[in-house]
Amino acid sequence: MKVRELSRLLGGELHGEGDSEIHGVAGLEEAGPHDLTFAEGARAVGQAQHSRASCILVPQGVTIAGRTSVAVSHPKLAFIRAAEALLPKSHPQSGIHPTAVVAPSARIAASASIGPHVVIEDHVTVGERTVLKAGVFLGAGCQVGADCVLHPRVTVYEGARIGDRVILHAGAVIGSDGFGYVFGEGRQHKFPQLGGVRIENDVEVGSNSTVDRGSLGTTVIGEGTKLDNLVQVAHNVKIGRHCVIAAQTGISGSCEIGDFVMMGGQAGLGDHVRVADRCVIGGQAGILPGKVVREGATLWGTPARPFEEFRRIYVHYSRLPEMAKLLKELSDRI
Amino acid sequence: MKVRELSRLLGGELHGEGDSEIHGVAGLEEAGPHDLTFAEGARAVGQAQHSRASCILVPQGVTIAGRTSVAVSHPKLAFIRAAEALLPKSHPQSGIHPTAVVAPSARIAASASIGPHVVIEDHVTVGERTVLKAGVFLGAGCQVGADCVLHPRVTVYEGARIGDRVILHAGAVIGSDGFGYVFGEGRQHKFPQLGGVRIENDVEVGSNSTVDRGSLGTTVIGEGTKLDNLVQVAHNVKIGRHCVIAAQTGISGSCEIGDFVMMGGQAGLGDHVRVADRCVIGGQAGILPGKVVREGATLWGTPARPFEEFRRIYVHYSRLPEMAKLLKELSDRI
Amino acid sequence: MKVRELSRLLGGELHGEGDSEIHGVAGLEEAGPHDLTFAEGARAVGQAQHSRASCILVPQGVTIAGRTSVAVSHPKLAFIRAAEALLPKSHPQSGIHPTAVVAPSARIAASASIGPHVVIEDHVTVGERTVLKAGVFLGAGCQVGADCVLHPRVTVYEGARIGDRVILHAGAVIGSDGFGYVFGEGRQHKFPQLGGVRIENDVEVGSNSTVDRGSLGTTVIGEGTKLDNLVQVAHNVKIGRHCVIAAQTGISGSCEIGDFVMMGGQAGLGDHVRVADRCVIGGQAGILPGKVVREGATLWGTPARPFEEFRRIYVHYSRLPEMAKLLKELSDRI
Repeated sequence: MKVRELSRLLGGELHGEGDSEIHGVAGLEEAGPHDLTFAEGARAVGQAQHSRASCILVPQGVTIAGRTSVAVSHPKLAFIRAAEALLPKSHPQSGIHPTAVVAPSARIAASASIGPHVVIEDHVTVGERTVLKAGVFLGAGCQVGADCVLHPRVTVYEGARIGDRVILHAGAVIGSDGFGYVFGEGRQHKFPQLGGVRIENDVEVGSNSTVDRGSLGTTVIGEGTKLDNLVQVAHNVKIGRHCVIAAQTGISGSCEIGDFVMMGGQAGLGDHVRVADRCVIGGQAGILPGKVVREGATLWGTPARPFEEFRRIYVHYSRLPEMAKLLKELSDRI
Repeated sequence: MKVRELSRLLGGELHGEGDSEIHGVAGLEEAGPHDLTFAEGARAVGQAQHSRASCILVPQGVTIAGRTSVAVSHPKLAFIRAAEALLPKSHPQSGIHPTAVVAPSARIAASASIGPHVVIEDHVTVGERTVLKAGVFLGAGCQVGADCVLHPRVTVYEGARIGDRVILHAGAVIGSDGFGYVFGEGRQHKFPQLGGVRIENDVEVGSNSTVDRGSLGTTVIGEGTKLDNLVQVAHNVKIGRHCVIAAQTGISGSCEIGDFVMMGGQAGLGDHVRVADRCVIGGQAGILPGKVVREGATLWGTPARPFEEFRRIYVHYSRLPEMAKLLKELSDRI
Repeated sequence: MKVRELSRLLGGELHGEGDSEIHGVAGLEEAGPHDLTFAEGARAVGQAQHSRASCILVPQGVTIAGRTSVAVSHPKLAFIRAAEALLPKSHPQSGIHPTAVVAPSARIAASASIGPHVVIEDHVTVGERTVLKAGVFLGAGCQVGADCVLHPRVTVYEGARIGDRVILHAGAVIGSDGFGYVFGEGRQHKFPQLGGVRIENDVEVGSNSTVDRGSLGTTVIGEGTKLDNLVQVAHNVKIGRHCVIAAQTGISGSCEIGDFVMMGGQAGLGDHVRVADRCVIGGQAGILPGKVVREGATLWGTPARPFEEFRRIYVHYSRLPEMAKLLKELSDRI
């Protein structure tokens, strides 16, 4: 694709050589001739001069002396679009691999690709163009939508419902039993885990993450939400739309998370926490069971509190040795 | 089943309509006609009036105006029993799926169900009615008892011993090498991981949890203990009976945990920690290596300390800004 | 092997009976006749007298009354060597199991062992004597070196490069997509994850750990580095050589870790952290994004700080109730 065509596609403003050919995309430092890259932020724009890329996507109003650039309102987003245009996804061959074990009652779209050693139980449905890589397991009655990719060894327990354009990375487990026991007569009794799990459209779940089914209700991961690797979502949790939840975070039973919530890595939520829309939970933060977090709040620490409050306290925490010394001096003097 | 029969089965006291038919179980809010539900605690009992369930299990001495109820000493436990009676577990067909690879020296009970793509190595034994779902791996010499369920993709390394009625969820790994190295000559040398691992009766292990084999001794998960998802149990750990360990908790090498211990999510124990019976470890708590925790203690925070102590300190931590201000005023005045 | 031969092999100094036969290795307490064991540290040396082992490896200058011992400069390291000599690793039969699905374009060394239900995609190479256990998946274009062991259900995404003598434990995932999104127009857009991943020689990765591919660059795990179970390594991370990283630690995107770094369990590093050589990061420590940690530092707490500083502050934190009381008394008096 020529730079000129790319610029037109992205609705950008071209400065420099429009006839260069672009074959791929790369980071500022790794880019070579025929690569597209992007520069966002003052530091990156400064470095861009030394990039060997053929064309650099920059913010509006920016040009780079002696370099070909395309100015757009959101360079990183434009870069994503350009990558999609330049590197069209290859779809594996449709059809069912001869080593796959597919129940006769399952309904598999003709354009779907079912890899080696996949196991599909009774009454499962798999939508158009969906790809199940090697060793995927779909339990009885699962529904998987169109244009999904389930990477190797993904396990989906019986009855789970998965929307369209969902990506599940290797080893992810959807719909395993929730963790519920009742103590009596000297031992733990397993509480029924009969509920469902629903993964909505455009969700992505990282490698080896686990999403339990509801005990009696349903666990829900809302549209467009992204979970990183090794994330734990317990039974009956409801996560809203377009959330981003970083690796190793754990969300306990019956939590309700709003839309556009962001969580850092290794955060932990006790059971029945309610987090409203647009909250930000810091990495390693721990939210006590039952807590209600108001819209737009930023929480930090364990037990988690509003970031500003955390910081105000933390400053004094760091000065505790001086405080103690001063206190002793005063005490001695009086 | 009629309400009257259910009441008799549970040894409860029936109030209301004994002839209604019960077909299933559900939560208070989700229940419809022909469902059984339960109400424990004042709030749930209050809500129960609005439930559409045919019958509500309630604590002794409680009735709900205009509703059919069965009073029992422990409604939640009775609900579990009722669910077991109403929804008998379906056992998959016994036999060995033709795609399974089973060593001729393995001894598989005739009533066991061995799913597609299971791999069973030499000298393994699998007990009566045990179910191995798709893709389970049992390494050479493993022993698996009766009435177990191993969900898809469970991996059991060679020589592990698993009791009766054990449930291992998808992706769980039992018996992988412990994490032990000796530094010398500028690099890490792998310490032999030759020990065993024993999972006793009635244990349940969550999805993608990992239990390492002993290095020279044996790792043990005691009878009736339940591990949630993504839990890590290191080499030579001994966990007692009927413990409940929530998701993403990590237990380092050679820890010894007593009976009836409860751990919140994301707790971490350093190596050689000893936790006596009936302790409670809070979520995200971190216990320093070698620490001994006395019977019945409740620990909190990192480094973990008794909850009451933690709370006493934490109250003042929260007030640090005021303390600092007061201290400055005093200092200025003197 | 006779004790005398073993002593010679280890370059040690023999005290006692050189003609005893040694058949295996064991811990001090578990060892029986014909076992070799070791004692390092005063306590272990004291216990050694009661061991039933035929021979005890001890530090130079130590003997144990009435027992046969071999004195060496580093008993634990010598024990590893002896174990290797006494218990030669059995190599599974070479060849490709008939249930494995191997692309015709893949190049598999004749001495490699490819287990049941393994899937190997196009243009993969597998080196001499490498063992792929049941259900391993190697995506298109992967390179795996010689003498590796990939345990059951390991998933390696396309294009990953794995050196020699690498051990990947069950369920580990190498090369899954990094966690990168750009928010725009009300939803998250997936940033391209086109980079590579390189696992160098002598690396060991624990069960169910996850190592993401680079987004545009490459994720690297350096030579001889060991990762425990359930560790998360994000996109573009570079880890140096001979590091030891304990279970459930998470390393965010673009971190750079030097050589000989040690991390306790459940540590968390924010993105773009740089940790120089020979640092020690405490268990559950949390390092803020972008932080630079100087060579040889020991860090502790969240947010992490130098251990000495942490301890100095923490002492006063523990005494906060007394401080508050004293402060109140002074305030009342003035």
